[in-house]
Amino acid sequence: MSIITLTTDFGLEDAYVGMMKGVILGVNPSAVIVDVTHGLNPQNVVQGAFTVSAAYGCFPAGTVHLVVVDPGVGGERRIIALALNGHRFIGPDNGLFQLVLGQEDQGDQGKIEALVAAERSDLFRQPLSRTFHGRDIMAPLAAHLSLGMALEALGPEIPREDLVPLDYRPPRIARDGTLAGVIVSIDHFGNLITDLHARRLADLYPGVPDRKMMVTVGGRRIPGLSRTYSAAQKHRPLALVGSSGYVEIAVNCGSAQSYFQAAWGDRIAIEALHGSTPIS
Amino acid sequence: MSIITLTTDFGLEDAYVGMMKGVILGVNPSAVIVDVTHGLNPQNVVQGAFTVSAAYGCFPAGTVHLVVVDPGVGGERRIIALALNGHRFIGPDNGLFQLVLGQEDQGDQGKIEALVAAERSDLFRQPLSRTFHGRDIMAPLAAHLSLGMALEALGPEIPREDLVPLDYRPPRIARDGTLAGVIVSIDHFGNLITDLHARRLADLYPGVPDRKMMVTVGGRRIPGLSRTYSAAQKHRPLALVGSSGYVEIAVNCGSAQSYFQAAWGDRIAIEALHGSTPIS
Amino acid sequence: MSIITLTTDFGLEDAYVGMMKGVILGVNPSAVIVDVTHGLNPQNVVQGAFTVSAAYGCFPAGTVHLVVVDPGVGGERRIIALALNGHRFIGPDNGLFQLVLGQEDQGDQGKIEALVAAERSDLFRQPLSRTFHGRDIMAPLAAHLSLGMALEALGPEIPREDLVPLDYRPPRIARDGTLAGVIVSIDHFGNLITDLHARRLADLYPGVPDRKMMVTVGGRRIPGLSRTYSAAQKHRPLALVGSSGYVEIAVNCGSAQSYFQAAWGDRIAIEALHGSTPIS
Repeated sequence: MSIITLTTDFGLEDAYVGMMKGVILGVNPSAVIVDVTHGLNPQNVVQGAFTVSAAYGCFPAGTVHLVVVDPGVGGERRIIALALNGHRFIGPDNGLFQLVLGQEDQGDQGKIEALVAAERSDLFRQPLSRTFHGRDIMAPLAAHLSLGMALEALGPEIPREDLVPLDYRPPRIARDGTLAGVIVSIDHFGNLITDLHARRLADLYPGVPDRKMMVTVGGRRIPGLSRTYSAAQKHRPLALVGSSGYVEIAVNCGSAQSYFQAAWGDRIAIEALHGSTPIS
Repeated sequence: MSIITLTTDFGLEDAYVGMMKGVILGVNPSAVIVDVTHGLNPQNVVQGAFTVSAAYGCFPAGTVHLVVVDPGVGGERRIIALALNGHRFIGPDNGLFQLVLGQEDQGDQGKIEALVAAERSDLFRQPLSRTFHGRDIMAPLAAHLSLGMALEALGPEIPREDLVPLDYRPPRIARDGTLAGVIVSIDHFGNLITDLHARRLADLYPGVPDRKMMVTVGGRRIPGLSRTYSAAQKHRPLALVGSSGYVEIAVNCGSAQSYFQAAWGDRIAIEALHGSTPIS
Repeated sequence: MSIITLTTDFGLEDAYVGMMKGVILGVNPSAVIVDVTHGLNPQNVVQGAFTVSAAYGCFPAGTVHLVVVDPGVGGERRIIALALNGHRFIGPDNGLFQLVLGQEDQGDQGKIEALVAAERSDLFRQPLSRTFHGRDIMAPLAAHLSLGMALEALGPEIPREDLVPLDYRPPRIARDGTLAGVIVSIDHFGNLITDLHARRLADLYPGVPDRKMMVTVGGRRIPGLSRTYSAAQKHRPLALVGSSGYVEIAVNCGSAQSYFQAAWGDRIAIEALHGSTPIS
């Protein structure tokens, strides 16, 4: 088995994803290629970082994760490959893997086993285009990794500190004492996925029960963290901890996106009621 | 070969479908996973029931069909698995499989070989979320079925009568003598797919030729059942029996959805002209 | 390995694509099925022809390419299969493969190894629908090809001249001396893909550097062909040669479709500045 996952902002209207798969199968005919999603907002590196961070652990160790959100394609940006927790990743060096590598506020999620600049031009597809390195560079390199090539064979090791940081500010304690985050994804059901992880809440408000939490979004307050989408009345909003561990806002049998007229990047705050003070 | 099909209302914008595939491959690395569709209208169990009923027969016997339209996730609803006609199915007990099991008006479509409540929590993914049982419960169980696990190993048998009925009223003879149904799907081309099956028409109006049928939709009458989409003039509507056996309304080189301003659930009627009376 | 690619205008909302895959796997359980795209504009044969022409070369030789844009389904149109450059193709005879076979202005792209009318009705799915030949005829035939069946076994050979031409006028030298083409695709990022191939430009304007070219679209002039999407200032347009060799118009960190309010089929012109006259 050699699984390669694809996570991109390419959409599915065009042949781009299919072309990448063709190139992969040309190198490794036995590759099992799985789409994580191609529906990332165009050029939204932060959303890509959250997506790969949430999804990769669903796959078995040994999987190669190819992630392409690449506004700098054809410019000076590097392509990097890393190994971590038994998984391997390849994509542009623009912050995409910073959440896989660990969020400051969540403790290190993973131990880097290797981190290299992927420069093996002899493995690139020819002719090499200047605008589609997902197909011409990253796809063949991912395929070679899936065949068992060592990460170190792709290029020189680089220190983690050398990586381009993610253009994103993690949740923080605001002046009013609430924990302030943002909406980092809006899903197909209109659920608003935030960057507030349950682990962070547990650290900040130890022992505070879910019903004592208060979420504020779009100027409205939602009391308590529910257990299921059907915990609110129909067409009423609720907050809960979603399937990847992040607080999300939903509307039972409806769309929170419509209900709140919410957009990517909107601010969201959470606090514990009754004077529980956060441990910062 | 062990094929697992996926039919959901998850859309493809998010990583949900990819996560389910990762979990499946973690259990059965040789599974061949095929998307039937992830474009069901959110939480539309009736559309899901029609889709799985129409699609499963295109796959070879032995296939496992995982169907997730699950508004009750995390609540009291059961997850069920059944075997029928050499195929196996798994999904929430909310009516999704009632059309596979046979429509009242179409004779029994299948003989149930087994029907169980899927409760093998030792096979669930850990940690178990409360909002994504498609990934955490149904995906691993489907993968185990595809590996050859007996359906009965998933949990206790339950009688068919115990299943939650589908919230759907089958076509019926209206007071005016027409056969009345509804639009149960609108496809990518804007074709309006109804729940009126050709078998039902043949039973009701034996010997009546297609050209003597009259379809009424949105207050407009369409004479005859055509053989192909190009049977009408360009941009003009027609009715025909579609590729799954149901009457559908189309517009040659156009969209019937736009033409009729039609929506899911809209009423449609069909009758035989010249006083042919239905056999009820 | 036996790869079958799918390129259609079916979209992904419905079960149509999944049904085709089920039929393929019923014939060849080992087929590796890859979606090129299902997002072609409905019934847009020209877009389909460009897509398959651009994509097939990304796959390894031996691949079977099933292409279904089929407004004439159920009518008199033939289904054809051809072998070329080690690849095999199957689809309706409506011009879909004319660009694979070679564009007049680009020299022959490929040598036809075989070209037949696909008529082996004993291999069709039963019952045969009149509206979904992608599933009932082309899918099983593609699967048999992927199993090693000779193309000639599908039906009688036909001469290339017998094929239905593509309803499309290639780029030409306009009266004002510019090379005039059209937008044949608008991608997920809003990039406007034209039918003006870099090879044609090189033939017409030998030795003229990219910076001396001038592109006109929507009444606006874009000087020079850039190397990357980030060559223009943010939110400003640029022209470049895209990853399949065709000139395209993009907006850095934006959508050229929105910027130019452009649509499929819109005219685009290119010329060399400073009196370079085209070689026609």
